[in-house]
Amino acid sequence: MIPPTLADLQAAQKRIKQHVHRTPVMRSQQLDAETGAQVFFKCEHLQRTGAFKARGAMNAVLGLSRTDAPAGVATHSSGNHGAALALAARSCGLPAYVVMPANAAAVKKDAVASYGGKIIDCEPTLAAREAALAVVLKETGAQAVHPYNDARIIAGQGTAALELMKQAKDLDVLVVPVGGGGLLAGTAIAVKGLNPRIEVMAIEPEGADDAFRSFGLGELQPQTNPDTIADGLRAGLGELNFEIIRKQVDTIVTVPDSLVVTAMQLLWSRMKQVVEPSGAVSFAGLLEYPERFRGRRVGVVLSGGNVDLDRLPW
Amino acid sequence: MIPPTLADLQAAQKRIKQHVHRTPVMRSQQLDAETGAQVFFKCEHLQRTGAFKARGAMNAVLGLSRTDAPAGVATHSSGNHGAALALAARSCGLPAYVVMPANAAAVKKDAVASYGGKIIDCEPTLAAREAALAVVLKETGAQAVHPYNDARIIAGQGTAALELMKQAKDLDVLVVPVGGGGLLAGTAIAVKGLNPRIEVMAIEPEGADDAFRSFGLGELQPQTNPDTIADGLRAGLGELNFEIIRKQVDTIVTVPDSLVVTAMQLLWSRMKQVVEPSGAVSFAGLLEYPERFRGRRVGVVLSGGNVDLDRLPW
Repeated sequence: MIPPTLADLQAAQKRIKQHVHRTPVMRSQQLDAETGAQVFFKCEHLQRTGAFKARGAMNAVLGLSRTDAPAGVATHSSGNHGAALALAARSCGLPAYVVMPANAAAVKKDAVASYGGKIIDCEPTLAAREAALAVVLKETGAQAVHPYNDARIIAGQGTAALELMKQAKDLDVLVVPVGGGGLLAGTAIAVKGLNPRIEVMAIEPEGADDAFRSFGLGELQPQTNPDTIADGLRAGLGELNFEIIRKQVDTIVTVPDSLVVTAMQLLWSRMKQVVEPSGAVSFAGLLEYPERFRGRRVGVVLSGGNVDLDRLPW
Repeated sequence: MIPPTLADLQAAQKRIKQHVHRTPVMRSQQLDAETGAQVFFKCEHLQRTGAFKARGAMNAVLGLSRTDAPAGVATHSSGNHGAALALAARSCGLPAYVVMPANAAAVKKDAVASYGGKIIDCEPTLAAREAALAVVLKETGAQAVHPYNDARIIAGQGTAALELMKQAKDLDVLVVPVGGGGLLAGTAIAVKGLNPRIEVMAIEPEGADDAFRSFGLGELQPQTNPDTIADGLRAGLGELNFEIIRKQVDTIVTVPDSLVVTAMQLLWSRMKQVVEPSGAVSFAGLLEYPERFRGRRVGVVLSGGNVDLDRLPW
């Protein structure tokens, strides 16, 4: 697999422009005062499907010619990628098959179904998910679109950073969450391609810290028994993602779940924005390491807002 | 008391411009599909202090010369007006005294205190609140600023509609909640002064329907035993407010609390916006009377977002 280039990100931006939102950047006097920084929140929770995932999925599916994928696209997903792929496929008149574990949140299943995705239930293990996907691919002839270990997906996710750098000039640091590494890898390519002076910092939940460990060791480490409320960040780092991240990311730090909850509460109560746990992880990094941000111009990606309102973590 | 004119609203807009946010207008494809209308949400939950109340309070306090109110301003409030008055007073270097019932929500007391307001506790009855305020006024020499039955407040609240009509052209109808009537009266003056063709529609909770009854009878009716989760709309309509409303408002309808909760959930889950019950009442009107809105361009004021995240009504 070949990493995407800045030119690939710019092509992705052009390709998906009519199909995704140019999300706003929000400021908050109160949260600036709280952190001592100038914080520019990139609102990907206001993206279509409620998460940045729409960018990558749209780029991957729009890039397929009708003859490449006449039978549609398929993936396994317990979360936002499934909905994003369903939306992207519908935009192109293609079917989308989404293998989902039986214990996936009802709100996530509803989202996939609302975009016309065909849901295939399976047992909640990685092996069962991969086996079910293999069957789907064989039976339908659909093309698999991986949620993050894919150059087209990485290029699409990187468009959020391209936008943010135009919306907020002269950032000192750009902060994103890391799970599988699609958003982080895309962000690093965008930032280092346009302005290498800007620090790229990744924040990871303590209970799913394979990116942190891999980055430190310089060698891809497996994700074992992830335990975090940030359900969108439980995936293990992809190989292609790690190749990009180890070269182009400056800093990776971890945050405890308790601080993720605090970050969520601040974003909800002060900014009135519904951000999911995974989406609040980046801001939790500012609360954990305030001295790293004080006096700086900080871009923070709020990556998603899909949360079950009946099961809030407080 | 003399009702404010369109010119008073325009003067208020100029006066408060540097001190309040020009809040954004949001759209949602999903909520447009849900209602069959083109809905333009005026985001006053993103206003300073988390509610439109900052507009009126700022206009009233900025309008006082230092000699008029050297001793500060005072009010009794269980909600957003107290915080707004405290913020406005602080902006002018004046003290603000806020009489609050002992059972006021902690989050509301914290807000008043965070803006430097001096809180005076009292029993949770209207008589106790008025008595406590009288004592404060006598002891401090502060000037009372009523939360809605006041031309300066009405003029300030009307600036939200002035903005919205610029941000969303050619509206067919503008929908706002009604409690004491400050926002509704100001909105009516703005709309009928600039474009009388636009319908002004007020939505009121069924359990606090004095405006609905007063409008129907053509005579101000008292609010008796209000019972609604929309805590910002439990006040009785003001006299000055009613005088304006009976002449300039086109329609008043009521909604049950159950639909207010549904409206909140839709705004939180689809638009990712934290809107308080009173702030969601206007949108609940669209859900209650869909046939009145289908195919029309509808402005909806989301009036506030201050809600206790530990006590959600679902």
